[in-house]
Amino acid sequence: MNVSVIGLGAMGAAIAARLLDTGHDTAVWNRSAHRAEPLIAKGATGGTLAEVIAASDVLIVTLLRYNSVEEVLAPVFGELAGRTVVNLTSGTPNEARALAALLASHGVRYVDGGMMAVPEMIGRPGASILYSGDEAAFEEARPVLAELASAEFFPGDAGRASLVDLSLLAGMYGMFGGIAQATAMAERAGLPPTVFAPRLTAWLQAMATQAAGHAVVAEKRDYTTDTQSVSFNLGALEAIMEAARDEGVGDGFLAPVRDALAARAAAGRGEDVFASVIEAVRAQDAA
Amino acid sequence: MNVSVIGLGAMGAAIAARLLDTGHDTAVWNRSAHRAEPLIAKGATGGTLAEVIAASDVLIVTLLRYNSVEEVLAPVFGELAGRTVVNLTSGTPNEARALAALLASHGVRYVDGGMMAVPEMIGRPGASILYSGDEAAFEEARPVLAELASAEFFPGDAGRASLVDLSLLAGMYGMFGGIAQATAMAERAGLPPTVFAPRLTAWLQAMATQAAGHAVVAEKRDYTTDTQSVSFNLGALEAIMEAARDEGVGDGFLAPVRDALAARAAAGRGEDVFASVIEAVRAQDAA
Ligand SMILES: NC(=O)c1ccc[n+]([C@@H]2O[C@H](COP(=O)([O-])OP(=O)(O)OC[C@H]3O[C@@H](n4cnc5c(N)ncnc54)[C@H](OP(=O)(O)O)[C@@H]3O)[C@@H](O)[C@H]2O)c1
Ligand SMILES: NC(=O)c1ccc[n+]([C@@H]2O[C@H](COP(=O)([O-])OP(=O)(O)OC[C@H]3O[C@@H](n4cnc5c(N)ncnc54)[C@H](OP(=O)(O)O)[C@@H]3O)[C@@H](O)[C@H]2O)c1
Repeated sequence: MNVSVIGLGAMGAAIAARLLDTGHDTAVWNRSAHRAEPLIAKGATGGTLAEVIAASDVLIVTLLRYNSVEEVLAPVFGELAGRTVVNLTSGTPNEARALAALLASHGVRYVDGGMMAVPEMIGRPGASILYSGDEAAFEEARPVLAELASAEFFPGDAGRASLVDLSLLAGMYGMFGGIAQATAMAERAGLPPTVFAPRLTAWLQAMATQAAGHAVVAEKRDYTTDTQSVSFNLGALEAIMEAARDEGVGDGFLAPVRDALAARAAAGRGEDVFASVIEAVRAQDAA
Repeated sequence: MNVSVIGLGAMGAAIAARLLDTGHDTAVWNRSAHRAEPLIAKGATGGTLAEVIAASDVLIVTLLRYNSVEEVLAPVFGELAGRTVVNLTSGTPNEARALAALLASHGVRYVDGGMMAVPEMIGRPGASILYSGDEAAFEEARPVLAELASAEFFPGDAGRASLVDLSLLAGMYGMFGGIAQATAMAERAGLPPTVFAPRLTAWLQAMATQAAGHAVVAEKRDYTTDTQSVSFNLGALEAIMEAARDEGVGDGFLAPVRDALAARAAAGRGEDVFASVIEAVRAQDAA
C-alpha cells in the first residue's frame, strides 16, 4: 500500500517520519516545499501534489484547519477519485460531515480521524487516534494507520470520531481549569506549584474514577440520593470560592459548576444527587 | 489517651465507630441524643457534654458548620481549658483561624483538620486528613488521629490545612464540570454515559499528569513556548464549544477557560503557553 502525507507541520512531519521508520513507501507534500526536504532526505518521495496523489492509495492529510484542506484538495478532486483520504486535521463534527459529503460526491473514500496525541507521541504507547467515515476504506488503511497510534473505528456518520475526540478534550479543559484554580489557591497556603502538583495529580486521578458513578446516575436519570446532594455540594463550592476570594485568588474557574448547582437548587432540585448537574448542558432530546 | 467524638452525623458516627473498633476509650455526644445510642451499645461512653469533655484529653468535633461548633462549645469553654479540640468540621481558612484564636483565648489547644474522605473511607486506605494549628497538640493526638486516615500536619497558621483541602476540592470540582460537559457531548456521539466513562476516566488520569508541567510554568512564570500556545488552545476550545452547540449540548462548563484564554490573547499574550491561564485567578501578590 502506497501512502502519502499531505501537510508537514509538526504533526504531519512526525507522521511521515514514523511511516518511513516503519518501512512504508511514503510520498510527501507541503505547501511550503522546504518542509519536505528533511523527509525526502530520509527516503520519502517528493513531487507536485498531483504526482504525490497519483503515487498513493491512501493520503493522510494533516493541515491546520478544515478550510485549508478544502483549499488544497479542491484543484485535485479528479486525481483523488477512487483513493482514500484520511483527514487528521482537527475540526468540528459538522466540518467532518461536510467534507465527507463533498469528497464522496467526487468519488473519494473519506476517513476522518481525531488525534489524542501530540507529535512526540506518534508511534509510541499512549497515542490514540479515533476514526469514523468509510469503514471499508479504514480497514484497508488500518495496517498503515496502526503504525501511528492505536486506531479505533466508530461506525456511523463521519463526525463521530471528531465528537468523541472533542468530548474527551472538553473533559480535559474542564480539569485544566480546575488545576489552575487549585494551584493558585494552594500557592496561598504556601505550597509552591511544583510542590503541590504531585498531590494534585494523585487526587485528581483518584477522583477521576467518580466518572463511573456520575455516569450511572446520568444514564438512569435517577437523581435521588441520601448523600452528596446538590445543596451540600453548592455549600461546599460557595465555601471554596469564598476562601479563594479571602486569599486574594479569583474564583472564576468554579463559577459554572456553582451556577449549575444553584440553578438546580433554585428549581427545587436541591436534594438531587450532585451528578445531576449534567442536566445544565445535556441536549434536551438526548436519548 | 481518652478521646471523645462530638457530633455524630454520618462522619462523626463513622469516626466514633472506628475508634471503638481500634480499642480506644471513646466518649460520644450529639445534639439529638438518639444518634449516640448505637455507639453506646458498641461500648462508647455517653453523658452530658460537660461530662464527656471532663472524660477526654482530645475532642474530635465533626458538626455541620463552624457556627454549630461555636454554638455547641461556647457554654463549655471553661471545661475545655487545657484540652485539645480537633475540629474536622468543613469551613474556610478564615473560619479556622477565627475559631483557633477564640479557643486559644480560653486556653484550649486547637487543631484544625480538612478531611479528604467520605464516611465509608474512614480507617481505610486512601482516606487522608490534613491538619494545622497547634503542632504539639497534634503530635500528642496523632496516635488516635492516625486510626482515622493518613494524618499530615501543615505547620503555620490554623487555616492552612483547610486551604490545602479546599484547593484540592477546587481541582476536583473543575474536573467534575469537565466530566459533565464531556459526558453530555459523548452522549450525542452515541456513547451512553456508562460506556463512555471508562474511556473518560483513563484519559483524565493520563492528562492529570500534565499538572506537573503546568506547575513548572506557573512557578517560573516563564510563559514562552513553541507549542501549545494560548491562541492554539483558544481555537481548540472554540471548536469544542461550537461542536457542543451544534449537537444541542450546552457549553457552559468550558466558558471560564475559554474566557481566560481570550482575555490573555486580547492582552497580547496569545503566544504564551497554555498554562499561563493561571494568571486569570492568581493572587496579585502571590509569592
Ligand atoms: N500539534 C499537536 O499537538 C496536535 C495534536 C492534535 C491534533 N493536532 C492537529 O493537527 C493539525 C496540524 O497540526 P500541526 O501541529 O502539525 O500544525 P502546524 O505545525 O502549524 O502545521 C500546519 C500545517 O498546515 C499547513 N497549512 C496551513 N494552512 C494551509 C493552507 N491554507 N494551505 C496549505 N497548507 C496549509 C502548513 O503548511 P505551511 O508549512 O506551508 O505553512 C503546515 O503544513 C491541526 O489541525 C491540529 O489541530 C495537532
Ligand atoms: N459526609 C462527607 O462525605 C464529608 C466529607 C468531608 C467532610 N465532611 C464534613 O464533615 C462535617 C459533618 O458532616 P456529616 O456528613 O457528618 O453531616 P451530617 O450527617 O449532616 O451531620 C451533621 C451533624 O452536625 C450536628 N449539628 C448540626 N447543626 C448543629 C447545631 N447547631 N448544634 C449542634 N449540632 C449540630 C448534627 O446534629 P443532629 O444530629 O442533632 O442534627 C449532626 O451531628 C461537615 O462539615 C461536612 O462538610 C463531610
